[in-house]
Amino acid sequence: MSAKKTRRPLVARLRPVGVIRSTLRRRSLAPRQGSEGAPDAWLDIDAWAAEALDGLHAGDEIIVITWFHQSRRDVFRVHPRSDERNPLTGVFATRSPDRPNPLGLHPVVVRAIKGTRLRVGPIEAIDRTPVVDIKPVL
Amino acid sequence: MSAKKTRRPLVARLRPVGVIRSTLRRRSLAPRQGSEGAPDAWLDIDAWAAEALDGLHAGDEIIVITWFHQSRRDVFRVHPRSDERNPLTGVFATRSPDRPNPLGLHPVVVRAIKGTRLRVGPIEAIDRTPVVDIKPVL
Repeated sequence: MSAKKTRRPLVARLRPVGVIRSTLRRRSLAPRQGSEGAPDAWLDIDAWAAEALDGLHAGDEIIVITWFHQSRRDVFRVHPRSDERNPLTGVFATRSPDRPNPLGLHPVVVRAIKGTRLRVGPIEAIDRTPVVDIKPVL
Repeated sequence: MSAKKTRRPLVARLRPVGVIRSTLRRRSLAPRQGSEGAPDAWLDIDAWAAEALDGLHAGDEIIVITWFHQSRRDVFRVHPRSDERNPLTGVFATRSPDRPNPLGLHPVVVRAIKGTRLRVGPIEAIDRTPVVDIKPVL
């Protein structure tokens, strides 16, 4: 046992496993949720992570976890849906992309799989959004 | 045909916003899902992120996102539920905690809130698991 028990903040590092390829190019034009008119998109998985796709099939319901690379991480309260008539609310009570760790959860259906490319949707993530994980819906 | 297995750089850094305080002390003793007999636990939010809790209430359904700090990140296929009778399956088609970015999704109910401590459950995350985000169930 070492003498010191200093609690250092753990910094976990995410390595993107792929990227979203979407016709949505700008955050300002994206729907707030996939169910609000978002398109289907391609999810391109990097070769090094391709093995982790084994067992996924067209028709599966999955949760895509993204990293909102354009988000602000110093925002703790927002007006929900950017509507100032809604009272300021803590971001943990909202789906705001601006939050301390800007992770996005996207429940989608796998439309098709072509090699390491998954067609998924509907999904509101914009083009080039990094993907960090995929999980099946249980 | 020269698909290089280049890895994307570790671009995203997670800063934990809090920690799980649970009676579950070891991964080997934890249920595989919260619904499989997991206990309630405390979620202690750090003071710097407390403002983000505004608007959460007892009774709310939320998704707690954790970082499985004891996981292996070099595992791409597993026997689901650690049962070798189940065929090897890509981790993106399973909820294995071993995966390239070991994020955990925990749908729970907020039982009570005391300051910056949330009583939540049921949740299978073990004691000291870092929490990186909280989202409402939509």
